[in-house]
Amino acid sequence: MRVRFDLAYEGTDFAGWARQPQQRTVQGVLEAALGQVLRLPQPPALTVAGRTDAGVHARGQVAHADLESVPPLRWLNTVLPADVRVFGAAPAPPGFDARFSALSRRYSYRVADAPVDPLRRRDTLAWAHTLDVDAMNEAAGLLLGEHDFAAFCKRREGATTIRRLLSLSWVRGADMVLEATVEADAFCHSMVRALVGALLAVGEGRRPAAWPGQVLAAAVRDPAVTVVPAHALCLERVSYPPDSELQARAAATRRVRVLADGSDGSGDGFG
Amino acid sequence: MRVRFDLAYEGTDFAGWARQPQQRTVQGVLEAALGQVLRLPQPPALTVAGRTDAGVHARGQVAHADLESVPPLRWLNTVLPADVRVFGAAPAPPGFDARFSALSRRYSYRVADAPVDPLRRRDTLAWAHTLDVDAMNEAAGLLLGEHDFAAFCKRREGATTIRRLLSLSWVRGADMVLEATVEADAFCHSMVRALVGALLAVGEGRRPAAWPGQVLAAAVRDPAVTVVPAHALCLERVSYPPDSELQARAAATRRVRVLADGSDGSGDGFG
Repeated sequence: MRVRFDLAYEGTDFAGWARQPQQRTVQGVLEAALGQVLRLPQPPALTVAGRTDAGVHARGQVAHADLESVPPLRWLNTVLPADVRVFGAAPAPPGFDARFSALSRRYSYRVADAPVDPLRRRDTLAWAHTLDVDAMNEAAGLLLGEHDFAAFCKRREGATTIRRLLSLSWVRGADMVLEATVEADAFCHSMVRALVGALLAVGEGRRPAAWPGQVLAAAVRDPAVTVVPAHALCLERVSYPPDSELQARAAATRRVRVLADGSDGSGDGFG
Repeated sequence: MRVRFDLAYEGTDFAGWARQPQQRTVQGVLEAALGQVLRLPQPPALTVAGRTDAGVHARGQVAHADLESVPPLRWLNTVLPADVRVFGAAPAPPGFDARFSALSRRYSYRVADAPVDPLRRRDTLAWAHTLDVDAMNEAAGLLLGEHDFAAFCKRREGATTIRRLLSLSWVRGADMVLEATVEADAFCHSMVRALVGALLAVGEGRRPAAWPGQVLAAAVRDPAVTVVPAHALCLERVSYPPDSELQARAAATRRVRVLADGSDGSGDGFG
């Protein structure tokens, strides 16, 4: 039986999602908890929608595992440390694959250009210069759509950097913190943090609003683009098609990735 | 010159606001930082609007000190640890007293009856039972106004427990977390946490909505009222009258407190 898990974590004390020897990772901790609760001889393997980097948080992460039974939610949360919580554990509909069925991933990025609320310092970047939200949104609008985001991606041999950027916008909240909403079909490695870095250069007036679009068009990694810190980034939501389309979507994604990447390691929501 | 400070802190690693020997307190840390930035031989003394307990947070705390000059905000925040931030430091209007000029203090209290977002676990209480917000608000409405809150206060010899409760209401947010807003002219010790404890008993169905009002009317500490944990409580805002009334308000408050309490130690916003 395939089980879908909806979960959240604070990334501060994790070396990212992906299991690594000798490191505390979300995948490692969660797989161990599942093995314990289900009394399995070996921890089960999880497949995730967005393989977040070290320090990146998640509020709407999705993963799946193939199990004999659905682990009781309350027991699972009792076994898990407080920086990981599972909000849902239920049988997945036929054809569901947490990674390949996903239509899009949505991230948030929080920046404060005033002193940071101490209670939010673990998910907010302190920025020393006043930021112009309108200029940032003007620049962001020029990046939307399907493009080769090579300029904002860490290069990986043989991997495609073509992505569809569905939304990228900034709002200054009642608490005066600027929050970016960034959604794409998938992200390549460090893409959100590089996009945010380019937009902050515009926001503080160091670059014109047209600049991030020019960087994008050049399609080569630009050393003038700063990759901002991981701790203000949070995976908010993963979107899936209606149940009847899950299988077809997974097959289509797999085909594109294999053809384009020659690997299975990219494009699934890197922080 | 009297300087008004607007500040925020995460209470987790503090033994409360009030300076105590051998303890890390907000007052101690902030006074030391002021002494360092202003190069004073001795740290200056701060007077605060709400003397929060150990573990209680503040987003809108106000304090004052009498100083030779206003310390530069950026320098002060560089010297301070990340769990205290000063948002404002400016000369106070004539007659201003952070404690005695205040008209009211407003606190929030956050409770989740679903798994707690790991990023908010330091300021959210996890509650194991589903809560009925309507019942809690019905019960809360019966507590408003000026009453003797002895039933919800830690007894202090010779101190009045008469307070004016200006608002007490619950809202379930988009994230499904229940947040109480509690405002009064002042609070006696542990009052907010005892009020919240009584309302949670109503919310989970252990007590009828009339019960907290009956406890209030009895005017004696009721052991059936649970004082809930400190970490979900946050001082959100302190309200002051227009500048022209600051002096009169401070004089009136001082008179009432001295007459009623026979001490200067109560009534100023305990968590």
